[in-house]
Amino acid sequence: MDPIRVYEDKIELIDQRYLPHEEAYVSCETTQHVFDAIRNMVTRGAPLIGFTGIFGCGIAALEAGDYSEFQRLTDHLKDARPTAVNLVYEIERVQKLVSEDYNSSVDSKKISQKIFSFGREEMKKLTADNQRMAEDAEKLLKEIYPEKKKFRVATLCNTGELACGVQGTALGVISHLHKKGLIEEVFAFETRPYLQGARLTAFELANEKIPHRLVVEGAMYQLMNEIGIDASYIGADRIAGNGDTANKIGSATLSVISKEFNKPFFVVAPTSSFDFNLNSGVDIPIEMREQSEVLGFRDLRVAPHETTAYNPSFDVTPHQNITAIFCEKGPIKEPCLETVMKYRD
Amino acid sequence: MDPIRVYEDKIELIDQRYLPHEEAYVSCETTQHVFDAIRNMVTRGAPLIGFTGIFGCGIAALEAGDYSEFQRLTDHLKDARPTAVNLVYEIERVQKLVSEDYNSSVDSKKISQKIFSFGREEMKKLTADNQRMAEDAEKLLKEIYPEKKKFRVATLCNTGELACGVQGTALGVISHLHKKGLIEEVFAFETRPYLQGARLTAFELANEKIPHRLVVEGAMYQLMNEIGIDASYIGADRIAGNGDTANKIGSATLSVISKEFNKPFFVVAPTSSFDFNLNSGVDIPIEMREQSEVLGFRDLRVAPHETTAYNPSFDVTPHQNITAIFCEKGPIKEPCLETVMKYRD
Repeated sequence: MDPIRVYEDKIELIDQRYLPHEEAYVSCETTQHVFDAIRNMVTRGAPLIGFTGIFGCGIAALEAGDYSEFQRLTDHLKDARPTAVNLVYEIERVQKLVSEDYNSSVDSKKISQKIFSFGREEMKKLTADNQRMAEDAEKLLKEIYPEKKKFRVATLCNTGELACGVQGTALGVISHLHKKGLIEEVFAFETRPYLQGARLTAFELANEKIPHRLVVEGAMYQLMNEIGIDASYIGADRIAGNGDTANKIGSATLSVISKEFNKPFFVVAPTSSFDFNLNSGVDIPIEMREQSEVLGFRDLRVAPHETTAYNPSFDVTPHQNITAIFCEKGPIKEPCLETVMKYRD
Repeated sequence: MDPIRVYEDKIELIDQRYLPHEEAYVSCETTQHVFDAIRNMVTRGAPLIGFTGIFGCGIAALEAGDYSEFQRLTDHLKDARPTAVNLVYEIERVQKLVSEDYNSSVDSKKISQKIFSFGREEMKKLTADNQRMAEDAEKLLKEIYPEKKKFRVATLCNTGELACGVQGTALGVISHLHKKGLIEEVFAFETRPYLQGARLTAFELANEKIPHRLVVEGAMYQLMNEIGIDASYIGADRIAGNGDTANKIGSATLSVISKEFNKPFFVVAPTSSFDFNLNSGVDIPIEMREQSEVLGFRDLRVAPHETTAYNPSFDVTPHQNITAIFCEKGPIKEPCLETVMKYRD
């Protein structure tokens, strides 16, 4: 399973809306195709959306006659998902990358090739970064449990290939531990309301034949109490300068339950997810999503029609609850303003 | 909305399987009708199943020619839901109640009337008991927050009329607080995987026009952090002699999050839910339910076919996390072996 297939002048994206029951690909051969695929959530996950944006620029270069047309097409692409910071960030990098080439009247095809190469390099770079984090995570886990040979770990939401396009962050750690023969069993939280755990993480775990069970978020306490979890790994949507970590709703709840049972709780995220301008997670805005996600299931309304819902999509785990953050520059143990800000440069 | 309508020689049960979108009643005029209604989960909730069992015995008395036939019919009824302790308990009480009447050749119709009267009395008794608990709960809440005029409260699963047949336990407290004008807003956890919160609690709250919002279990931390909850109320499936409380999955998780935010966490349950033979919740068996509840939604499979699930139906909240247990004999503050065992008699 490849979440994205990169060709010379087009890409194919696995349609994540139909996973896990159907593995269909959407071919993107025009800028508008790419726009639609991002807008309609064919593809998702901040890093993967970013890569899709880069290759979308490569496709735009083949359509555009000059830089102003290239800029118009790629600016439009930025609007496909207004909340995905990576998309804007990557497209602006590409615009800068090729502006000189347009000034020098370089051939459109060559510009496109340059962009495609850049995208491939970025994917390689993230693969290497995530592998480094996974190795650091393995090392620390063994330090914490010098006697243990196999581990029971938990994770929430989807932070695997389907989110990153390449080896994932938190799920990348788990995949790495499995390859090293260190996984006894993975417990994947279903991640209500959008069920990324049940649909995507379970799909990736099943694909890699990693032993796993799905569990509802309410069962966090019972899971720790009856089964026992050696470590939990989550990704991050934004990390403040003091290590407070915004991530999918349920993460902070899991961090408190982990603390209650004195079990390590890890965050796995590259420094591109760090927001050094914020001194604390209090300042991270929490996106509220549509009530319908909670009030029903897909098109089926469950709750009474008079009922409304409280549906924050993220929560902020206090840095005190985090054992370590693994980023591409190394592990940050006991994250706080002092230890995290070192990685500013 | 009446979860159960009691007539002279039959009962009607609201079909809880179709709530909240359809309010249909199932008429039970034979012992087999009652058996099927319990077996097929037309009705649910331990106290309501118990009452249904009593009236089922009243119906059986009309069908039976003698005590042995009465016993055969009512013993059969006990098997409708093997896990519902109340059902067996209530039916055995009725069998004892009328055995003498059968010996004295009392008319079947009179025996049936006696059983129906007994059932009505038991329902009245539970109403009074639950009202007492609600008043105690109101009093303690005001003691804790002497300045506060309106409260934000949370609850999990369904502990209302649909579970009890009469005013509920935890939801009965909330309904009482609302009648006293003390409710700002109720946050009802959806209660994955079976969604009793979304389907039944939201339905009762909507019926009573109590302001409420539905929330996923994962959002417990964010709810406390952003909205702030003044108190949480849950019911109980079984309470050990030290106050450890088995209740719907998610309860113990909520108790830990409540403790983290230093907010009161209350249990509301009659002493019939107390198991004084157990000194600790460690000895309470936890029912594991079908994996399909977690792996999908109704008939729709969500997770990949290779994926399995961990689906404990209950967890045990440690007594240390419980601010008070409200039972019909009074509030038990800081429940522990010493304070709970006083209520043994």
